[in-house]
Order: sequence, then C-alpha cells, then structure tokens
Amino acid sequence: MRRLVRTARAYRSAQEASRATHASGAGGSSRADGVEPGPAVVGLVPTMGFLHEGHLSLARRARSECDLVVMSVFVNPTQFGPEEDLESYPRDLGRDVAVAEEAGVDVVFHPSAAEMYAPGHATWVDVEGLTEHLCGASRPGHFRGVTTVVSKLFAVCEPDRAYFGSKDAQQALVIRRMARDLDQAVEVIVCPTMRESDGLAMSSRNAYLTPAERAQAPVLRRALVEAEVSISGGERDPRVVVAAVVGRLAEAPSASVDYVEVVSTTDLRPTDRIDGEVLVAAAIRLGATRLIDNVVVSPPG
Amino acid sequence: MRRLVRTARAYRSAQEASRATHASGAGGSSRADGVEPGPAVVGLVPTMGFLHEGHLSLARRARSECDLVVMSVFVNPTQFGPEEDLESYPRDLGRDVAVAEEAGVDVVFHPSAAEMYAPGHATWVDVEGLTEHLCGASRPGHFRGVTTVVSKLFAVCEPDRAYFGSKDAQQALVIRRMARDLDQAVEVIVCPTMRESDGLAMSSRNAYLTPAERAQAPVLRRALVEAEVSISGGERDPRVVVAAVVGRLAEAPSASVDYVEVVSTTDLRPTDRIDGEVLVAAAIRLGATRLIDNVVVSPPG
Repeated sequence: MRRLVRTARAYRSAQEASRATHASGAGGSSRADGVEPGPAVVGLVPTMGFLHEGHLSLARRARSECDLVVMSVFVNPTQFGPEEDLESYPRDLGRDVAVAEEAGVDVVFHPSAAEMYAPGHATWVDVEGLTEHLCGASRPGHFRGVTTVVSKLFAVCEPDRAYFGSKDAQQALVIRRMARDLDQAVEVIVCPTMRESDGLAMSSRNAYLTPAERAQAPVLRRALVEAEVSISGGERDPRVVVAAVVGRLAEAPSASVDYVEVVSTTDLRPTDRIDGEVLVAAAIRLGATRLIDNVVVSPPG
Repeated sequence: MRRLVRTARAYRSAQEASRATHASGAGGSSRADGVEPGPAVVGLVPTMGFLHEGHLSLARRARSECDLVVMSVFVNPTQFGPEEDLESYPRDLGRDVAVAEEAGVDVVFHPSAAEMYAPGHATWVDVEGLTEHLCGASRPGHFRGVTTVVSKLFAVCEPDRAYFGSKDAQQALVIRRMARDLDQAVEVIVCPTMRESDGLAMSSRNAYLTPAERAQAPVLRRALVEAEVSISGGERDPRVVVAAVVGRLAEAPSASVDYVEVVSTTDLRPTDRIDGEVLVAAAIRLGATRLIDNVVVSPPG
C-alpha cells in the first residue's frame, strides 16, 4: 500500500485495499491452508512527528500485535494555546517516514490542518473532570484539542488498537475515558516511557534545550524517582512529597516549576492522603522549554 | 438475527453475524451467480420510541436503501433539562418493536441508561454556534445531550446511513455538522416531516395534548405556511415575518410562544434581511406541551 497519505479519503481507500489483500490471504496467511484469515487488526500510533525512540517503541509494539500499522503525523493546532509553540514545534517529515517504515509502520497519515479542520469546524469533544488538574490547569483548552483530534483520527483510521506513551499520563487516561464513554471500538494501550541514559524522558521538545538546560533536565526524573521511593517507603502525606519534589527541582538553576501534584490514578483529582495508587506528576520549564514527567506508585501494604 | 438487543456488546455480535450472512450471500445475492456481494450497508434510525408515522417513514426509507436496518429506541436522559418531561415521556416498547418490524426494521437497539452512561461518564460532544439559537436557547444542554448520544449510537451501530426527520430541523443540521467535523463515516439523511390530516407535525409529545389543545395545535403549521407564502411572495424583512407568525399564534387561546425565528439554513444565525434560503422555526407551548415545527423557504428571484 502507499506509504504516505494526506487525506482521510486516501487513507480510507488505502485501508480498504489493505483489508482486501488481508482477506484474500495475500502476504500473510493463505487460503491454501484452508484457514480463513480473520478481519485485519488495525493499530494506530498517533503522533505529532519529529519521531524519537518513544514513538518508535509504540510503532514496534503495534507491529507485533496488528496486521496493519498506521502512524498519524499531525501537529494539531487546536491543542496548542495562543502563547504556545505551534509555529516552532519541530518537524521533519522525510526522516519521520523513513524511521517509521524501519519500525514497521505500513502507512503514515499526514493530513493538513485544512484537511482536519474544514471551514466552519464547530464540534468539540470534551472530557470533564479528568482534564481539570495537572496539564489541564496549565494549558486551558489543550485536552479539548487532543480529544477532538484523536476522535477524528479514530474515525478516519478505524483502529482496533491505539498506542500512547506513559509520559503523557493524563492524556492516556483522558483518551481511555473518552473511548469508553463514546463507545469507540478501540483498545487504548499505554506503553512505558522511553528515556535517555540519564533518565530524561524522551520528548520532541527536548530538541529545544540548550546544552546548559539539557544538563539540568534530568533533575525532573530524579525528583520523581525520589517521590516514588518516599511513597513506597510509607510516606502518606502528599504535601510532604510535593515539597520534596519542589525542593529537588529548585537545585536546577534554570528550572521553574509549573506544577507538582499527587493525584488519584482513577479520577486525577488531588488527594489529601496517599491511600491507594497515585500519580505523581510534574511539569517544569527549563528556559523556554516545558517538560513533563510522572511516576505511578502505590503505598506499602 | 435477534430482533431486540439491549447492550452494545449484543448489538455488535448481532451485526457481525448479519454481516457474515450477507458476505456469504445467504438471503440476498448468491455467490452461485459469480457476483460477490459488497459489504452490507447499515442504516440507523435513532428514536426515543413511542413510534409514529414519522419514525416509520424513516424506517421504510432505510429499508429501501440498506441491507441491515437498525432502529435505536432510547429515551436519552442527557438531552432533557431538569424541569423537562423525562419521567413522563411516553413509552411503549412492545408496540414499538412490533410496528418497527412491520416497517422493515431488522433489529431494535434498546439500551438502558446505565448501559449508555457508565459510572463516571465524563465525555461530551458539543457543536458550537449552530446550537446557540432556536431550541438551543430554550433548552440549555439539550443539543449536547443529543450530539453525545448520537455519537455513541454511531460508534455502536456503525451505520453507513442515518435517518432523521425535518421537524427537528436544527437537530438534523447539528448532527450533519457533527458527522462532518468528527469524520464520522455516516451519511446523514434528512426526510420530510409527516403530518396529521390537519397539518400538525407528528410527534410523540402530541399524546400529551388535551382534546381542546389538540384542536388548537394546527395553528402552528398554519402560521408557518403563511410565513412561507409571505417570503415566497417577496417579503424580505424577518421582523415582519416573525410578527405575522406571532400574531397568528396568538389566536390560539392556550398557546404561548417559546420562540419564532428566521435564521440562515447554513449557520442557523438570525438574519437581518431575507436574501437566501432561510429556516422559519417556531416553538410553542399548548398547556404543558411543547411543540415545534418549521418551514424552509427561499425568497423569489
């Protein structure tokens, strides 16, 4: 099938052709065995491109589980705030297509903004509650943009499985809730965060960091691992945990804290006392670059 | 296939079985001809039940165009306001299933509210702009409930075509916009309003009317037809049109006007001057019963 498609119509006809090939047994199983193949399982890896090892780990996981792997590459304007980095967000489509193919992606769906948002676009998908804290508080409208575009990608690509990374923990939980609430027939699969050797979570935005900022960036992971150790060791007071994380982050001279929160993993609301599984999530700015990371941890006993 | 299903899971497996039957040529076309049938075309008629001839005309249209006709019967709580008639809304499932089958419906999807709205439901689909006027102004939150439940029905039933009546003109335009904006792979088909012999638009809510109110109810249609005649005859001032409709409605002693508006059919916003196709829409109360109706009309030349 075609490796790069730019419109929903082109994607649908490519998928149709791929399904037909699958159903006739070409490429994979064969009707000569007397075994009819089931319907092709479609895996979707939604990205904003400028691919790193995190994205590629999702693609390889999809490749191992699906018959057809599609990766969307779309820098979605509606999830950026007016003061954010939509214009400067890094892009390299040629490299993305090459490394995606290497990771087993069958087709890259790379629509234009005009393809995704027709004149008069007026429809929005909102997940309430789960989007009020953490990045939702720092980035008003961000999750509305994410859930709307992911709904559209689900509708165009009709995936059976969709793959998201754990670095964006809130995003993953929001999308899983959305898929359940809207009966979207897709399994939302959340995969581990990929990290540099010093612990920094991989992110396309790491490309913004100056060498001095890059040297300080691992403080975010270090602070969160310390929080994990503290809670595993019996600390039950989220204020103590947050204060320790903030204190550690203050050691990086270029870092400023956007948020540090301890929230329940079920509703993403702040908790008064750590009694069950919690998400410790933090966002910092290093110079002009916003970085996020998190740990999920349960208290002992 | 089973005639009545109550869960999304049951619907999906019934549909799967029906598609398999279709693909093997049983019942319809035959592979003995050497002609492979295409994928089954699924038609959806979303309703709140208590079926009348309007609903059945949609079902018959779907029957004439689709391989599999599903009708949903679901009194959707999220589209009712707190002071509205959710509890008293008329219901008669036994009769609905019988008359739906008579009209050619293959399967009635009748979920419970708990099936449609799981604990923690937090996701809403909103169409902005188109929902601000007409019924959207009178019934805050109504269209959010409609678009959310219709998105869910589209996701569960995966229709190729969905059928709506013209009486709910705003609803039809909102759903068509939603389907376009969210890339829902469904054709939204809007069918003519069915009427009683005296012109009253058929509605499940007509059952609420006392005999005295029922006798006055045709005034709504009469007033709107007069507006149509007036605009067709050259009237360009929406204020003149609205005043004439309101004047005619005042002749019914039990009627009170909820709204009378002249809006563009493209964005449903009020217009200062009738220069193109407009929707003249009205809602009245007759006693405790709210009735709506509309005409679409273009000025001459």
